[in-house]
Amino acid sequence: MWLPDDFYERVHGRVLEALAEARLDGMIVTAPADVAYLAGFYYAVTERPVYLWIGADGARHCLLPELDSEYAAAQRIRAETATYFEYPGVISPEQHLGTLLAGIGAGTGRIGYAPSLASGTLEAVRRELPDAALVPTGLVGRLRLRKEPEEIALHRSAAEICDAMLAAGRTMISDAIAAGGPLPREGEIARHVIGHGTDLIYDRYDHVVFTTKLAGGLVYAGPNSARPHGLPSSRRVEVGDTLILSLGAAVASRFVESERTFVIGEPTDDQRRYFGVVAEAQQVGTDAMIAGRSCADVNAACLAVIKDAGYGRFLRHRQGHGIGIAQHEPPWIEDGDRTPLAPGMIVSSEPGLYVPGHAGYRISDSVLITEDGPERLTRYPRTLEENVIAA
Amino acid sequence: MWLPDDFYERVHGRVLEALAEARLDGMIVTAPADVAYLAGFYYAVTERPVYLWIGADGARHCLLPELDSEYAAAQRIRAETATYFEYPGVISPEQHLGTLLAGIGAGTGRIGYAPSLASGTLEAVRRELPDAALVPTGLVGRLRLRKEPEEIALHRSAAEICDAMLAAGRTMISDAIAAGGPLPREGEIARHVIGHGTDLIYDRYDHVVFTTKLAGGLVYAGPNSARPHGLPSSRRVEVGDTLILSLGAAVASRFVESERTFVIGEPTDDQRRYFGVVAEAQQVGTDAMIAGRSCADVNAACLAVIKDAGYGRFLRHRQGHGIGIAQHEPPWIEDGDRTPLAPGMIVSSEPGLYVPGHAGYRISDSVLITEDGPERLTRYPRTLEENVIAA
Repeated sequence: MWLPDDFYERVHGRVLEALAEARLDGMIVTAPADVAYLAGFYYAVTERPVYLWIGADGARHCLLPELDSEYAAAQRIRAETATYFEYPGVISPEQHLGTLLAGIGAGTGRIGYAPSLASGTLEAVRRELPDAALVPTGLVGRLRLRKEPEEIALHRSAAEICDAMLAAGRTMISDAIAAGGPLPREGEIARHVIGHGTDLIYDRYDHVVFTTKLAGGLVYAGPNSARPHGLPSSRRVEVGDTLILSLGAAVASRFVESERTFVIGEPTDDQRRYFGVVAEAQQVGTDAMIAGRSCADVNAACLAVIKDAGYGRFLRHRQGHGIGIAQHEPPWIEDGDRTPLAPGMIVSSEPGLYVPGHAGYRISDSVLITEDGPERLTRYPRTLEENVIAA
Repeated sequence: MWLPDDFYERVHGRVLEALAEARLDGMIVTAPADVAYLAGFYYAVTERPVYLWIGADGARHCLLPELDSEYAAAQRIRAETATYFEYPGVISPEQHLGTLLAGIGAGTGRIGYAPSLASGTLEAVRRELPDAALVPTGLVGRLRLRKEPEEIALHRSAAEICDAMLAAGRTMISDAIAAGGPLPREGEIARHVIGHGTDLIYDRYDHVVFTTKLAGGLVYAGPNSARPHGLPSSRRVEVGDTLILSLGAAVASRFVESERTFVIGEPTDDQRRYFGVVAEAQQVGTDAMIAGRSCADVNAACLAVIKDAGYGRFLRHRQGHGIGIAQHEPPWIEDGDRTPLAPGMIVSSEPGLYVPGHAGYRISDSVLITEDGPERLTRYPRTLEENVIAA
């Protein structure tokens, strides 16, 4: 599941073009997702910084903690490597970086960094590169917006895993109902589906890497589901509950989200009505994901379905977000983002409505923007009829 | 398990003293762990910022996304709240912050922020507060160094959970050996012990909150264990393996780590020798954790045991790190940190040695610094005899 050299060389070429266009002599990269994207090095994130230098001359050097040295080599990191022993160090990582850049004749001129760089770190780097002009640039973020074909294949594989996780969660509950026993707790369901997804990934791939996680999920039912970001609980799901399985999985850290709302037992009229409105919003919002249309317009079309149904007061969030090496990343399918959708972008389409004291309803697919229109990568059934768990 | 009002009022009083001492008119807090520490609001971290304002006049206001509004109220957040609908928003969160501060007559004068604040965010805040001097300050970090009595009680509870997780992992392997079946995979052991810890937390506490996770763990055996931060694998543990269970748990986000090295079956001479050196380093290093002694000195005393045994080439990391609301936080038990240890600090003592191709050895306790010397909060047995899993 490692990406081929071709991928990294193509992306590297794009970075060099973007550096030239921005008249930058090089850039310092330290966000873990950017390091993974550019150098193919996936690592456990701690306070120990990893610095990737990309020079306008094509040079690639990575400074990393000794702790990760063998691990980076095993992943065939696409950069010359140098190490520092530990954090914070008598000699700081930023001093090591200064020495490294001086040693290769870099560290002067216009040097880019991402706006996510911590302000304190920026100051420390500035002290070590007194002859450089440090310039914020979103160039790596812009490159990451449109996925390469090899990445899209990984996202497709992640979508299969995600859909299988949904099925496993549903089966767990059906089985408990059939056995006549108590239904599982929210946390137990989460663990079961995350375990199922993780096992699938290890079964299917020899070399498993990730930046944050392989599989994850929020599981909440009944009143808990009305808080879209509430932390999980030990509540047992019950017949009559509305249940949200909000699952994600990543193959080589290319994420997908697949989320479905289930009803356990015969749905009430309220449950049918709320489900119906969200399902329609999700269909309308997904159909609107046409290349060239702005994120803000798509979001407005999607949320209008919920507002027009008279449920605007139950809205708690936008339609969706970009998804890639990070689970949430630009573009944002929201009023404030005028980015036009473009082929190769992958975004979530996940409108929801949340009725305090009753339940939440959300349906999410990860959608690939293509020349020919939106393509849902996640394919688990999404009608109410198909998402009733008989009890 | 929520902290009492007393705790938050005491900490708030300390913040006001520190603001006065630093001649600051207030500070903007946005690191999730700092928000949790100061306002008692624990939330799922996304791109949507939460801004907590603490004025030198004692005012506390929190700007948060609509998504988290009911959840913050349910946690009785210690601040007046205002919300913005979504990220990025037509009106940005930083514009909302500017409006909020203007409305309460704040937003001018000397305003502090933590160096962890993203440089791009700092610029956005600066644009909205043109009459303010924004000043980096580590004052919240300094307050967090020494834990309050109520926090220490939570850390003690987390240590019990962690020790129980170690026992559960050991039992899982013993049971598999007794049953004559295949031994579990690394990932299965990790899931089992994390599930065990999570269940204990939900069983023991009514109100469960966290900043990053409840329980976590790295499990690696044999050659995999020689990479201290390698990502987990699906390898089955085997008789003859050295096995590291590197576990953590948090109660109300007060973390503890408990890590042990096990040998499955009769240890070889190599295993005895490596284990013995690490156990001695851990004992010497932990005994050295005396209030007033510098972190660098303690680290040197600890690692000297490994170097003097001739295994300096197998070192990959420092002795340890502070532990609190964050799993890794200052002080750093490392050469570059001259901070004197002080009562109320909690730090890990976790020297390790890593023999490429063979295995890693690491023993970690979370240690409370007291007036009367170091107190290990984690108490799982740590001798080789007690950590041999008979096969």
